[in-house]
Amino acid sequence: MHSVCVLGLGLIGGSVLRAVRSAGYPAWGATKSEGDRDAALADGYDVEASVEDALRRAADEDALIVLAVPLTALEEVLRQIRALAPSCPLTDVVSVKGPVAEAVGRILPSVRYVGGHPMAGSTESGWAAGSAELFRGAPWVVTAEEETDLTRWAQVARLAIACGAHVIPATPEQHDATVARISHLPHLFAAVLAAVGAEGGPLAWSLAAGSFTDGTRVAGTRPELVRAMCEGNRSALLEALDEALGRLGAARGSLASTGGLAVTVDAGHEARRGFTATPQAGPAEIRIDLKDPNALDELLDLGTLGGRITSIEDDLAVGEELGNP
Amino acid sequence: MHSVCVLGLGLIGGSVLRAVRSAGYPAWGATKSEGDRDAALADGYDVEASVEDALRRAADEDALIVLAVPLTALEEVLRQIRALAPSCPLTDVVSVKGPVAEAVGRILPSVRYVGGHPMAGSTESGWAAGSAELFRGAPWVVTAEEETDLTRWAQVARLAIACGAHVIPATPEQHDATVARISHLPHLFAAVLAAVGAEGGPLAWSLAAGSFTDGTRVAGTRPELVRAMCEGNRSALLEALDEALGRLGAARGSLASTGGLAVTVDAGHEARRGFTATPQAGPAEIRIDLKDPNALDELLDLGTLGGRITSIEDDLAVGEELGNP
Repeated sequence: MHSVCVLGLGLIGGSVLRAVRSAGYPAWGATKSEGDRDAALADGYDVEASVEDALRRAADEDALIVLAVPLTALEEVLRQIRALAPSCPLTDVVSVKGPVAEAVGRILPSVRYVGGHPMAGSTESGWAAGSAELFRGAPWVVTAEEETDLTRWAQVARLAIACGAHVIPATPEQHDATVARISHLPHLFAAVLAAVGAEGGPLAWSLAAGSFTDGTRVAGTRPELVRAMCEGNRSALLEALDEALGRLGAARGSLASTGGLAVTVDAGHEARRGFTATPQAGPAEIRIDLKDPNALDELLDLGTLGGRITSIEDDLAVGEELGNP
Repeated sequence: MHSVCVLGLGLIGGSVLRAVRSAGYPAWGATKSEGDRDAALADGYDVEASVEDALRRAADEDALIVLAVPLTALEEVLRQIRALAPSCPLTDVVSVKGPVAEAVGRILPSVRYVGGHPMAGSTESGWAAGSAELFRGAPWVVTAEEETDLTRWAQVARLAIACGAHVIPATPEQHDATVARISHLPHLFAAVLAAVGAEGGPLAWSLAAGSFTDGTRVAGTRPELVRAMCEGNRSALLEALDEALGRLGAARGSLASTGGLAVTVDAGHEARRGFTATPQAGPAEIRIDLKDPNALDELLDLGTLGGRITSIEDDLAVGEELGNP
């Protein structure tokens, strides 16, 4: 088993270090946060004194480097990798994929990089909030595009699966557009809904029921986390937001003119039913030979159609297609 | 104890009939729905053969009539009341208060009407979905305005409390503006969020996490119920929607220009904290003498400040003010 070097030991990085060690990988970490470092050491984890030390060791052991630092710290760490461990395979767990791929391509153009994003989290943060079980049953996007080396892709996918996740293959663009729709826009909506509610004063709080409580829940997330993910995905979020504004504007126009909301309400109901519907057929197993020249297309098609990879057996990616709804 | 005549035996009307009978009121109902009538009869409730029969009996016994019919059926029933029981006291449980007060004022200008709205529900509907416990712990708005006879107000408040609810005094305008913010706008947002998610195809469903699940939950409600309440509260909903569009437009502008979302995200976080915060002081008891000339103002101030009435003792409304946060 190859070694794993985790840079950043907050909620996600700290959970990766725990999960890969449980899975049997030789693994160490490093962080600039003294609090997280002390906590990880106290829990018996292997933590180097500095990011530089961790990278020198990664270069010695050809370790897979996992970048778990905030997007704002990314460029500095990429420069350290260029200086100390430029030939190590590299992945990341940052919540946006296009900007990370762009920075990696600019600073480390020849690195063996495959992007990742485990779709798991918590409103808590820091090493103490992490868990080896955080990724159990969660989707973990592992990006694939034209230039992706599928041997490296398989290495990252195997790591994600070892952490308990299942792997969703997607291009960086697909990933960013999709999380804008299903995560970043919901966070913006929750913030706006909460603020409009607050304008109603204490009477609004005493009448608020389930629809408001549910619709504003994620407005309770720490603002710096929400800003980091939303602002980091700016162009995709603008597209999703414009689509939402178009739909709300249409609803407003219809309510003001005819008084009707059938189009808006029916479309939302239909969409929610699609989201919660159980597929009528069970999932069908799919096996993709990563040495096959069509493997990349097959992986991306699988992800686009809602399927996932659940194990990597040598050169074979084994997964499930959705049942026909 | 006076009698109660419930018109409409769906989820809310059926629950009112059950709850008032449990509380010891002599009570009967009527409905145009054969299914609900048969189900209520089978459960041992007193159901008249027609709305007309129920109203004649109400006139004989000076019963409090509870209108639990859809807004669209309201005018027809008000005309029946005008013909058969014009001097009975009247309340309703419709989810919008201004339009009901307007229709009552137009069709039955001299009736002893006090509006009501129990803030409880379910995604199910019909007699079978009801329960005597539906209103337990729920807020029940009982409207009060300049011309309100507080003896009649107390009668309706006592009924709501007997059903297990606590009473929030508010004007019809306050009620409609507030439910637009904390219920109708959240339903519209959920519909739009679900529809934008669906545009992301199956990949969106496989990546959707808590923020999307929570933010779209009420899009699962039956579309005709959502339309009835949103379309019935048209002017107040337009105001809340315009406020939301203004805030979303500002977020869009800021994201597109500076890339920052601090104002939006911070305001939402602050509002949600205000919503979930525990008051620092416990609630303080308040007693309002309904014979006092300031009683109406005191009731409305209490509601505006987030307080509630929990019992009616003769001419005294006893309630709680919020603790100072």
